[in-house]
Amino acid sequence: MDFKNRLEAEVSGIETILDKYLPQKEGYQQIIMEAMEYSVKAGGKRIRPLLMQETYRMFGGKTVIIEPFMAAMEMLHTYSLVHDDLPAMDNDDYRRGRKTTHVVYGEAVGILAGDALLNYAYETAAKAFDHAKNTKDYEKISHALRIFMKKAGIYGMIGGQTADVTNEGKPVDKGMLDFIFRLKTGALLEASLMIGSVLAGADEKSVSVMEQIGNCIGMAFQIQDDILDVTGDEKELGKPVLSDEKNHKTTYVTLYGMDKAVKDVERYTEEAKELLCGLKTGKKVEDTDFFEDILQMLVHRNK
Amino acid sequence: MDFKNRLEAEVSGIETILDKYLPQKEGYQQIIMEAMEYSVKAGGKRIRPLLMQETYRMFGGKTVIIEPFMAAMEMLHTYSLVHDDLPAMDNDDYRRGRKTTHVVYGEAVGILAGDALLNYAYETAAKAFDHAKNTKDYEKISHALRIFMKKAGIYGMIGGQTADVTNEGKPVDKGMLDFIFRLKTGALLEASLMIGSVLAGADEKSVSVMEQIGNCIGMAFQIQDDILDVTGDEKELGKPVLSDEKNHKTTYVTLYGMDKAVKDVERYTEEAKELLCGLKTGKKVEDTDFFEDILQMLVHRNK
Repeated sequence: MDFKNRLEAEVSGIETILDKYLPQKEGYQQIIMEAMEYSVKAGGKRIRPLLMQETYRMFGGKTVIIEPFMAAMEMLHTYSLVHDDLPAMDNDDYRRGRKTTHVVYGEAVGILAGDALLNYAYETAAKAFDHAKNTKDYEKISHALRIFMKKAGIYGMIGGQTADVTNEGKPVDKGMLDFIFRLKTGALLEASLMIGSVLAGADEKSVSVMEQIGNCIGMAFQIQDDILDVTGDEKELGKPVLSDEKNHKTTYVTLYGMDKAVKDVERYTEEAKELLCGLKTGKKVEDTDFFEDILQMLVHRNK
Repeated sequence: MDFKNRLEAEVSGIETILDKYLPQKEGYQQIIMEAMEYSVKAGGKRIRPLLMQETYRMFGGKTVIIEPFMAAMEMLHTYSLVHDDLPAMDNDDYRRGRKTTHVVYGEAVGILAGDALLNYAYETAAKAFDHAKNTKDYEKISHALRIFMKKAGIYGMIGGQTADVTNEGKPVDKGMLDFIFRLKTGALLEASLMIGSVLAGADEKSVSVMEQIGNCIGMAFQIQDDILDVTGDEKELGKPVLSDEKNHKTTYVTLYGMDKAVKDVERYTEEAKELLCGLKTGKKVEDTDFFEDILQMLVHRNK
């Protein structure tokens, strides 16, 4: 199967998993389930569960224990978008051409839907405990859950969002920009790769290498985002270009220049590939082809 | 030691536990740690960790494994207050005589501080896994964690908040009011009592009785809240009275009348005591005196 067909099949499998784990829409609180579903099913590339699943497979994982974590990761990522779009945050009325959650359901339900997705993400991931049979299973699942929580919280994504939001309109230096990229964008990618490897039973050192790979992917992805804001096509992107310049936002391109930005996307991608190659040479993982193809797609995207 | 002194000592112990588990204020994201601490240390009766700890003791629990859950419960309760106070929700500038989080730190950090407290609550509770030595320990802790998540989420507190927020200004019938009371106020009290008993190794039936007791306490507490809004003293309460009437809010008093409201507070309190008595008779718990004293304090409070 060529990459495009395989990718389509995998993403479709992820949609099925999401449908399975999203809550029934019922009861006096039904509107919150509707808002959750609206937000999660608004599209998106499903990169995090895709990479989590492929990591799990690369390390020899073979059971459905990964599925609740895949669904949970996408729910958690979605909560961050729902809250990011709120009037007090980025104040975005549209995302991927669709009205944002708070525009459709009102601001109060927008806030609650974000809270609900964050909480339900953990409820969902914890369903993996249903498959635990012995201490080793419990160790793996609780370890994966704690990685998830840490990378989502103040030492991960929320920490990055805080630095981003509180420095809006202020001059940002390289240390701060690096911090924001690594935490806001990188943390959940790192978590996805770490969770996939932990649940497959990878050793500590391999999990740490996967964390580094996640960090490289996050950096390459975010720098590419800043590049596309300058060079991208509005129609393809589905959002206005030059928005960073308009908002006087410090980006990788304004801090380092376009040449270095383009080079660094390549540099981080290469680093990720080399780390992956090291795992393959050390017989920690087998077939890395699909993972590398996803990586290529992410950094050479034009939207 | 008389009740007042014991209560003071216990609450002071809870403050120490909270200080121990609140995150260090450091890094580029320091302001979020400051906002979290400001919100958690804004006072409050610490009822949930107090009841959780006493339940744990009543069922013979003797280790520090309960502490991360106690701190986590208060963090989670605090997140719900921080988000409730936001302009798009209740729009409150003051709570317990102090400026609310979003007034001090701005609305964006207010939203993020709530998210951070919700996420950090679970990070904190999951620290109990550090004490797990065998499958039975893992079973207990993961069970407690999942109860916590369920009671906080769309089938618990967030579900109740959703029904409350989306029915503001609309006529509310008895079924809906009951739903809101049980979920918005009751769920975290139920969770506190269930977690305390689960971690102490109580059997399933006893945990279910503690859930019922939590529900009774929640109902009595919330009905008393509605009564105090009519009969309370503004200075003692630290908030304006007759606010429900002013906001045309359906309350237990408007739906059932003051007489029945006062009687039902007693009825739910008696039910809780009877259930507790049953556990004592069945030799499931030993000394219930302090628990009953807390119960008396909660329903006979004037603030």
